[in-house]
Amino acid sequence: MLKNDLFLRALKRQPCSRTPIWVMRQAGRYLPEYRAIREKTDFLTLCKTPELAAEVTIQPVELMGVDAAIIFSDILVINEAMGMNVEIIESKGIKLSPPIRSQVDIDRLSVPEVHDKLGYVLDAIRLTKKELDNRVPLIGFSGAAWTLFTYAVEGGGSKNYAFAKKMMFREPKMAHMLLSKISSVISDYVCAQVEAGADAIQIFDSWASALSEDDYREFALPYIKENVQALKTKYPDIPVIVFSKDCNTILDEIAAIGCDAVGLGWGIDIAKARTILGDRVCLQGNMDPTVLYGTPEKIKAEAAKILKQFGQHTANSGHVFNLGHGILPDVDPANLKLLVEFVKEESAKYH
Amino acid sequence: MLKNDLFLRALKRQPCSRTPIWVMRQAGRYLPEYRAIREKTDFLTLCKTPELAAEVTIQPVELMGVDAAIIFSDILVINEAMGMNVEIIESKGIKLSPPIRSQVDIDRLSVPEVHDKLGYVLDAIRLTKKELDNRVPLIGFSGAAWTLFTYAVEGGGSKNYAFAKKMMFREPKMAHMLLSKISSVISDYVCAQVEAGADAIQIFDSWASALSEDDYREFALPYIKENVQALKTKYPDIPVIVFSKDCNTILDEIAAIGCDAVGLGWGIDIAKARTILGDRVCLQGNMDPTVLYGTPEKIKAEAAKILKQFGQHTANSGHVFNLGHGILPDVDPANLKLLVEFVKEESAKYH
Repeated sequence: MLKNDLFLRALKRQPCSRTPIWVMRQAGRYLPEYRAIREKTDFLTLCKTPELAAEVTIQPVELMGVDAAIIFSDILVINEAMGMNVEIIESKGIKLSPPIRSQVDIDRLSVPEVHDKLGYVLDAIRLTKKELDNRVPLIGFSGAAWTLFTYAVEGGGSKNYAFAKKMMFREPKMAHMLLSKISSVISDYVCAQVEAGADAIQIFDSWASALSEDDYREFALPYIKENVQALKTKYPDIPVIVFSKDCNTILDEIAAIGCDAVGLGWGIDIAKARTILGDRVCLQGNMDPTVLYGTPEKIKAEAAKILKQFGQHTANSGHVFNLGHGILPDVDPANLKLLVEFVKEESAKYH
Repeated sequence: MLKNDLFLRALKRQPCSRTPIWVMRQAGRYLPEYRAIREKTDFLTLCKTPELAAEVTIQPVELMGVDAAIIFSDILVINEAMGMNVEIIESKGIKLSPPIRSQVDIDRLSVPEVHDKLGYVLDAIRLTKKELDNRVPLIGFSGAAWTLFTYAVEGGGSKNYAFAKKMMFREPKMAHMLLSKISSVISDYVCAQVEAGADAIQIFDSWASALSEDDYREFALPYIKENVQALKTKYPDIPVIVFSKDCNTILDEIAAIGCDAVGLGWGIDIAKARTILGDRVCLQGNMDPTVLYGTPEKIKAEAAKILKQFGQHTANSGHVFNLGHGILPDVDPANLKLLVEFVKEESAKYH
């Protein structure tokens, strides 16, 4: 039994004594303890070495006191498992080769057995669960099909998603074939993560806001729905968070695909999001990560404001405090620690 | 008298026979005729040579048949006029030096006499007006204070606006001092553009979506309001478009600052924007620029959809068709021409 299950209770919109908090990229470069390990190994090797992945996954639990751990990995492990060559130079750039731009390229990609090709992530989850010893829940995750599609087609990061959009707008059937292939791996992968011990799943659609509403409805949301349904069919009790960053005009449609929580960027006031969604889902977010560059007073004032904007909890409400995107590498860890402690203390009065 | 005043009529929400169209960056690298001129001169020299600036400003009017011209220039001319060294390597990068990060840096910036330091833009406007010979209206423009502030503080483009946010969150008074200084130049500059002959003004807040709603209310919108009011006090009949890109959750607050039109990115369905704003302002937008990579059928279908989403015009409605951001440099000019012709023809039935 978990000693601290506040995060899962919030996702399930069950009564909590206070608001739980974790932050995206909490196992990362802002921590000297993480950098010490990274000095000895490259990024992908770290992802692929369960002992090291487990160690950095647990660091923020011990050092920062967050209410959930998230398995240390990268969204691009799926692209690699499908047969692409992936190079990640952390903070510099990402290169995937060859870029997938034709039917032949798509056909050449495999739909791997995830226990085979992504077994190292599953091993890391099993080991982390053991070492966490039920202190807090462990989150598994995957990139969403649209975001992984952009990396595949562009061959890396992109400013305008020119190649991805060209395929969508000139060869929509081909685009759907690739999205569908990626999505089927995602569904298998998140289910396998749960089997390995993940207590909740987050789907990251980092580049969601590059699409118009209608294009999001056609090329992105149906695949996330497919993933959520695959999970819910097998594991109805495992909560799922969908983070379609900055899709603030279609929050209601995201909430309707069957997820337990909707992740928010900082572009929308969380009070507005709650007004739109009622208490149908848990809300996760949504402090601007750069607020952690601020003074202690500013950090506390901003966290207090978000808790107040969310407002009083009801019998069916849920809020997981988080940043609106990943913590930045040059943030002082003391500022995150201050945020975590402040949210734990300040949030009690709203429950 | 203007031979084609549809653009101004739409901005003023007066009856039109069809929907006018222009596109952001219509004078730009996608045009071989523009590239031919750029081969002989660098970007900033082109901005500073009225004969050449007028020539490229008029190119899309003659080649594409758009309903408005926009003076060829760059938002960073203000930073330069205030004393910063600006280097623009088109499509590569932007460097401003020194970055403005202290009170001493801010004090060192001047509030220039715009007729003196930005006279070349005013000369270009006068010459363009003469050469346009009243075929279509001429748009003047400026960057918004927040966007120009980010360039000043970061010393160029930025991913997370770390230095800009640090100043805002650690030294908010200092940030306001710099924003205020920039804003006063903007007000003078847009008024001078009108005096030189600009028929309408657009304020570009390109990096608007980097701010939370409350930060936009504190650090961005009040300065745009100041600029709009400065203009409206002197030139009540000159329409102003405010383009706070992707601020889709506060469109009502943007519309309330006294502008005539609100520019939209492609992240929101234009029908939703019209529902939120009613016909209080004209709407400008909002096709995803990458749709111009699509087939002719796709381009027409998307344009038809946006016209239909906007819907039937009333006695008080206004729509200016545009892209949701600048046209991309590798778009086939034939595709823009097709879009312009299609919008002109297809839109008539909604008026």
